[in-house]
Amino acid sequence: MMYGRYTQELGVFAKEEAARLRESGQRRSVTERSRALDLLEYEKGRCAKCRICTVRCQKFLISRVGEDWIFLVLLGLVMAMVSWVMDFCIAICLQAQKWMYGGLDSNVLLQYLAWVTYPVVLITFSAGFTQILAPQAVGSGIPEMKTILRGVVLKEYLTFKTFVAKVIGLTCALGSGMPLGKEGPFVHIASLCAAVLSRFMSLFGGIYENESRNTEMLAAACAVGVGCCFAAPIGGVLFSIEVTSTFFAVRNYWRGFFAATFSAFIFRVLAVWNKDEENITALFKTRFRLDFPFDLQELPAFAVIGIASGFGGALFVYLNRLIVQFMRKQKAINKFLMKKRLLYPALVTLLISTLTFPPGFGQFMAGKLTQAESLVTLLDNRTWAKQGIAEEFDYIGHSQAWKHPEVNVFVTLVIFIVMKFWMSALATTIPVPCGAFMPVFVIGAAFGRLVGESMAAWFPDGIHTDGTIYPIVPGGYAVVGAAALAGAVTHTVSTAVIVFELTGQISHILPVMIAVILANAVAQSLQPSLYDSIIRIKKLPYLPELGWGHHEKYNIRVEDIMVRDVRYITLNCCYRDLHNVLLTEHLKTLALVESAESMILLGSIERAQLQLLLSQQLGRPRRLEYIRKQAVAEKKRLSVLSNPSSEDSSPRASQEVRFQISTEESSANPTRPVLQKPLKPALKRSSGVERPTEMPTGPQNNSGIALKNLFCASPVTEGLENNNNMESPTPPELSRPAKRVRISVVEPPPSIKNLSGDDGDVEDDMTIREIAEWEEKQLDEQVNFNNCKIDPAPFQLVERTSLHKTHTIFSLLGLDHAYVTSIGRLIGVVSLKELRKAIEGSVTVKGVKVRPPLASFRDSGTSSSENEATELHKLWDHHKSMSLPREHTPSASDEKSQ
Amino acid sequence: MMYGRYTQELGVFAKEEAARLRESGQRRSVTERSRALDLLEYEKGRCAKCRICTVRCQKFLISRVGEDWIFLVLLGLVMAMVSWVMDFCIAICLQAQKWMYGGLDSNVLLQYLAWVTYPVVLITFSAGFTQILAPQAVGSGIPEMKTILRGVVLKEYLTFKTFVAKVIGLTCALGSGMPLGKEGPFVHIASLCAAVLSRFMSLFGGIYENESRNTEMLAAACAVGVGCCFAAPIGGVLFSIEVTSTFFAVRNYWRGFFAATFSAFIFRVLAVWNKDEENITALFKTRFRLDFPFDLQELPAFAVIGIASGFGGALFVYLNRLIVQFMRKQKAINKFLMKKRLLYPALVTLLISTLTFPPGFGQFMAGKLTQAESLVTLLDNRTWAKQGIAEEFDYIGHSQAWKHPEVNVFVTLVIFIVMKFWMSALATTIPVPCGAFMPVFVIGAAFGRLVGESMAAWFPDGIHTDGTIYPIVPGGYAVVGAAALAGAVTHTVSTAVIVFELTGQISHILPVMIAVILANAVAQSLQPSLYDSIIRIKKLPYLPELGWGHHEKYNIRVEDIMVRDVRYITLNCCYRDLHNVLLTEHLKTLALVESAESMILLGSIERAQLQLLLSQQLGRPRRLEYIRKQAVAEKKRLSVLSNPSSEDSSPRASQEVRFQISTEESSANPTRPVLQKPLKPALKRSSGVERPTEMPTGPQNNSGIALKNLFCASPVTEGLENNNNMESPTPPELSRPAKRVRISVVEPPPSIKNLSGDDGDVEDDMTIREIAEWEEKQLDEQVNFNNCKIDPAPFQLVERTSLHKTHTIFSLLGLDHAYVTSIGRLIGVVSLKELRKAIEGSVTVKGVKVRPPLASFRDSGTSSSENEATELHKLWDHHKSMSLPREHTPSASDEKSQ
Repeated sequence: MMYGRYTQELGVFAKEEAARLRESGQRRSVTERSRALDLLEYEKGRCAKCRICTVRCQKFLISRVGEDWIFLVLLGLVMAMVSWVMDFCIAICLQAQKWMYGGLDSNVLLQYLAWVTYPVVLITFSAGFTQILAPQAVGSGIPEMKTILRGVVLKEYLTFKTFVAKVIGLTCALGSGMPLGKEGPFVHIASLCAAVLSRFMSLFGGIYENESRNTEMLAAACAVGVGCCFAAPIGGVLFSIEVTSTFFAVRNYWRGFFAATFSAFIFRVLAVWNKDEENITALFKTRFRLDFPFDLQELPAFAVIGIASGFGGALFVYLNRLIVQFMRKQKAINKFLMKKRLLYPALVTLLISTLTFPPGFGQFMAGKLTQAESLVTLLDNRTWAKQGIAEEFDYIGHSQAWKHPEVNVFVTLVIFIVMKFWMSALATTIPVPCGAFMPVFVIGAAFGRLVGESMAAWFPDGIHTDGTIYPIVPGGYAVVGAAALAGAVTHTVSTAVIVFELTGQISHILPVMIAVILANAVAQSLQPSLYDSIIRIKKLPYLPELGWGHHEKYNIRVEDIMVRDVRYITLNCCYRDLHNVLLTEHLKTLALVESAESMILLGSIERAQLQLLLSQQLGRPRRLEYIRKQAVAEKKRLSVLSNPSSEDSSPRASQEVRFQISTEESSANPTRPVLQKPLKPALKRSSGVERPTEMPTGPQNNSGIALKNLFCASPVTEGLENNNNMESPTPPELSRPAKRVRISVVEPPPSIKNLSGDDGDVEDDMTIREIAEWEEKQLDEQVNFNNCKIDPAPFQLVERTSLHKTHTIFSLLGLDHAYVTSIGRLIGVVSLKELRKAIEGSVTVKGVKVRPPLASFRDSGTSSSENEATELHKLWDHHKSMSLPREHTPSASDEKSQ
Repeated sequence: MMYGRYTQELGVFAKEEAARLRESGQRRSVTERSRALDLLEYEKGRCAKCRICTVRCQKFLISRVGEDWIFLVLLGLVMAMVSWVMDFCIAICLQAQKWMYGGLDSNVLLQYLAWVTYPVVLITFSAGFTQILAPQAVGSGIPEMKTILRGVVLKEYLTFKTFVAKVIGLTCALGSGMPLGKEGPFVHIASLCAAVLSRFMSLFGGIYENESRNTEMLAAACAVGVGCCFAAPIGGVLFSIEVTSTFFAVRNYWRGFFAATFSAFIFRVLAVWNKDEENITALFKTRFRLDFPFDLQELPAFAVIGIASGFGGALFVYLNRLIVQFMRKQKAINKFLMKKRLLYPALVTLLISTLTFPPGFGQFMAGKLTQAESLVTLLDNRTWAKQGIAEEFDYIGHSQAWKHPEVNVFVTLVIFIVMKFWMSALATTIPVPCGAFMPVFVIGAAFGRLVGESMAAWFPDGIHTDGTIYPIVPGGYAVVGAAALAGAVTHTVSTAVIVFELTGQISHILPVMIAVILANAVAQSLQPSLYDSIIRIKKLPYLPELGWGHHEKYNIRVEDIMVRDVRYITLNCCYRDLHNVLLTEHLKTLALVESAESMILLGSIERAQLQLLLSQQLGRPRRLEYIRKQAVAEKKRLSVLSNPSSEDSSPRASQEVRFQISTEESSANPTRPVLQKPLKPALKRSSGVERPTEMPTGPQNNSGIALKNLFCASPVTEGLENNNNMESPTPPELSRPAKRVRISVVEPPPSIKNLSGDDGDVEDDMTIREIAEWEEKQLDEQVNFNNCKIDPAPFQLVERTSLHKTHTIFSLLGLDHAYVTSIGRLIGVVSLKELRKAIEGSVTVKGVKVRPPLASFRDSGTSSSENEATELHKLWDHHKSMSLPREHTPSASDEKSQ
């Protein structure tokens, strides 16, 4: 469906666009030429030429606004500024907390109150603010971006309001010092920025209205988000591709690189200009030795980190989901929390900040350090634990926080890892804009550090045996651990690249790659990625990946999963059939076949189109017309007695009226973008504003009985949140199509005007019984599909298409459903739902005849070819009644199976 | 077409595969269980259990052979070994040359002879060897891989022979010291290796026969090729994606990473084990300072390198193409060279090696150094030119070569760049396996070094003003230049990542990224990439990219480029129509429509299938059957006189025979993979062995007159090279389908056996006139499509689909052509050819009605909706003759346009 919609829209758009451009171009050039002439006339000096030149430059610049690179530069610039300003604010927030905490060191209770109140207030504000302004801003946003880039329209997720809510909410949330990340939200913010920017740019150039271009730009924006968050352009592009795309168009590659590089550059340049740094450097620069970064014999330890991180990552995703599901299931808690929406964030923040209170339990887990500070200390290239004892090492700067007079540094690290692990999993469930990448990254670094310190304690002089001593660098282990755990949670390999760019060193490339790949292998076989997990929790329309060892998927075919009982309408059906189908079936689109016998698929029609057809047939305007016609006929009948020759002209004239109406409808459509989006994706939240176009003549307007019936039975569109659009009555000013029909009725061509009386004259004086009778009669008429938008080439598959291929096609083209045909005949339909179920392996579906995955192998190999032959024969029989020399008798097929 | 083929084949394959696996699994488990029981019975000791365990492990291992990771590990291992062994051999070859040159330093002439003869011999051997063994091994192979991954089958490019030719040829070519690269060929070698390996593995597990899986593995293999060539796994994956894919499946990402990392790891470990290196390090390790790698104010210089590299890259591609085209055009030269194929390589090698002769002109361009050595010196972190004079700097090691007593180092660098530039462009046209990446990389490094040295001379104390002096590092400029020029020639951004991995330092990330992006921007707007240029030169079936600023492409629609005069066959056509269509039309596939009036598209049929149908109808077996039947009828006629009641049974029985034959044919098909590949891609070189299945009963077997006609007129398949398959006569043992038909005729069901006489009895005693008459009669019969393979769902587009979308779909699905339909009606066809022409902007095509790109905007907006309505109406009129209450009169449409 979406594929059809897309092509149609694009075509129409292109047409309009070109027409508009041509027109405006002509107009502009004319006006400009005249302006130039005017200038030349009035000021025949040398100044005129300059002005003409300026005008030309201006014109040239405006024409260039549509170029991709201008948009990308703007996007990069804006995002770099946003990122930098946010970082600045967050740093101030964190400093303020430290300052408060430090200033009150006389009284522990006051210190505790200051330490705890500050984050609680910030988080509560953040939660409340986003809740009020735009609830869509909650969470990381990567799952939503993944869904949007798959082709589903989630409009509310790309508004300016959401942008504001996300930026301010995120700043507050991160300023609180909770274990939250900025990476995921930044992907969303960049996409929001791109969407808002392209809406702004569309004021200048027309190309910004193009949907497919905007999707391409969104993909680039995701890369910018990661790129300017970590100042990691390459890693950003790769991470965004891995996280948001299923199939990536390589031609979009440069866009991402260009924008992300520009953005990262500006982001770092801002830091230099602000005298934060002397030069452009990596965010978390490391200083490992270059000559011998690690020993070949250390690789097993790195592999262990990778495998352990894999398990840890899966556990994190599981824990996160468990917490969300627990909160949902406990109805008592849920009810209470729903009432006091801000209580949950406040409670969680209170718990976490209490535990990290430095003079309290926080002393055992470096609670004093912010996320960035702990990362810097963890990536330090000095060894903390020498000779297995943590005593003699000189902790300087922030590293001091890891030192505890009574407790070993190993114990501190273990406590840090364990505590931060569940804290992060819990904190990311708070309804504020937040990501989980950074907390996970820090935990991974701590785990790596733990392993590294253990290795350093175990081999104090390094493993290398001949000659020079190369001590083990625990900081390298921290780098490996960070990349591995982050990779395991997000199911990406590109965390390795991000790590290189963050640290500015690529010397540990092999250990990092090995650990990341191992972590991915383990994590992917245990749990979905964090983002996929959230997609499932939020019930976004997704298509699960086929996974690593998916070769059994080659063996499932479309015929095993397709719905065979397809609802269709025939080309020669009457309105009653339409009515019945609409009553019984709640599908968004219906197949249009040639006839019930041939079942040749001609196209697909949207449900709303059929409702429109039906309401036009049974609607009040038409009934009034009928009454009017009746009146005219009555009048005529009386006049016929005096002049019998005029009998013929009347029906023809009324025919013309009818045709006038219908073509006004159909020819007006292509020029109206509102109407040209007939095939909205299934999950689009049907808001109260857009609903009326679907049922143009609301139930209260036309007092049709059958229609009322129908609209009451219309399905509740599955909104993502609790949408209250069902209550809103149809605003009369929005029922445009019906209005236009009426207008053309009100103003008939002059030839008819004299025939039909004034429109106002006709009174709707029919009784309910009469109406019912009239409607019954109308329902028996044949449907006229002329003024109905039909998707003329819905996507088709064959029975034998494998699940693997189907998945590929659905992902590639962002399909919602596809018809299964066999030599033109419609035999089934596969929608996203069936496909998802088949991939997930569940086979007990209500109303869907799902055969067990390997059912097709039970059938003998000949059956389907037989089917095909039979079907072809049916076609043949149907369309031809020629006596063939050798006829296909039913007994033959019995014989064949011998 | 390919899409249809693909889905069908996969389905059929999956079915068979599963059936086979199930069967063999059952069989195996039964035999194993019995074996285990046997073991238990005979040796009731503790040993038995061990054995059972072993057997189980073995079974488990065998079942695991199909897993992806095993294949990838094997591939990585093999490629790492190949790469390492090749590098080893190349190093020995180069050393040998140096040793010879060094040993003969008493006599310059002898030295010259040694210096020149050695590469000439090696290159000539390489050229001759590849020419004889596998001419497909010539060149880089990346263009071919791009074509193959697009879905075109170029079988000869993935054989073991080609593998051997490529490996040995490349080793010799690189051992000669010519400016040639190993990267491109390595992509090809890795793919070859994957193809050969999967053919080998298919002996164990069935999944290796799956085509779509093999394509996925080929994509991974490309990454492995780059990865193990440069020990750059990440860059390898990205480069291979950029160079070979149009749309990349993110789910294949990990495969590439996994295999490339493993391969790079083994490649480097081999070096450590061989004591070449102490530890795993980067190939061309740099030692730039970490604290202040470059100054922000140096960025303009880096940008200049980028832009200049862009122009240089475009020039290189242009020069390369120019040389090839010049050699082709000069017919006299061409003729001479074609005769003496090895002369051209020898001459070019002679010229280049003469110019690099160190005591001669080579002294001004560091001719003594090999490619790797010059790269190492160029990336050196010391400054050569201090205070603008090249005197006082201490050249150590290989850097000595850059020093010339009389000539400035700047002049040496300029000469090096200019000479190497045209030498590389020339050398890559030699018909040996060779790439251009590495030479270009070195030239870029030299250019960067030149700029860097100039900067160092200009700002001797660095640009930074406050306090510490940070001198400029020319080595950093070399890194930037190398990445930029390589990126410009190949149109990739990932050369940046390759550079980081090659040098082991990421400190110059920003300058490198900026320069690479600028170089790409310039180069892409001037010339196609080197690989695309070669694709065009070699005339491979490609689809050009839409390019950067492709927004005007949104405005062209399918209806502007489609061929409206589609050749079709109708469901009820007779054999004569088939014959005529086959005679006049040379398309690979033909559309099957319901009837000429309705034009409803039912599917597409391959030309070969139609030929088969026709030959079955007119073939000798059927004629013999006819004669036999005649004889039987004659016999019957005689017997009828005595027993009239048996008249009825005879025709029915013969019907059954006919049906038996046809279903035997169609039911046997799904289980025969040979026959299940009916829709071969258009460009597949039809080899002599496979041809017979397409025309199973060759012209010499059936003496049909019309058929002979037809087969003589059959189009010469466009082979890529001069394929001599036209001469090979049809081997009789290969005409299987026809044979099977005969077999089923020979063994009719018992009920008929007594009716039909012995097959051998019938004599082909018809005269040519009789045959012609008989054929005429046969041609008037209606075609029975029952035993014909029809692609039941060919890809369909609508008229309004934009060129942009069409391009995307064709690239995504690897289509060859697509039908344009409107509500089921076939109205046009778009093939790769039309699409390519539309993208390239040429509109003068013979036989193709191409409207100018923006033609559709000249039509008014209403026209197409009118068309649609009219078409629907036609359908309606055609299928229904009901009198509608309001008829669509032609006058109405006139009125509408008012």
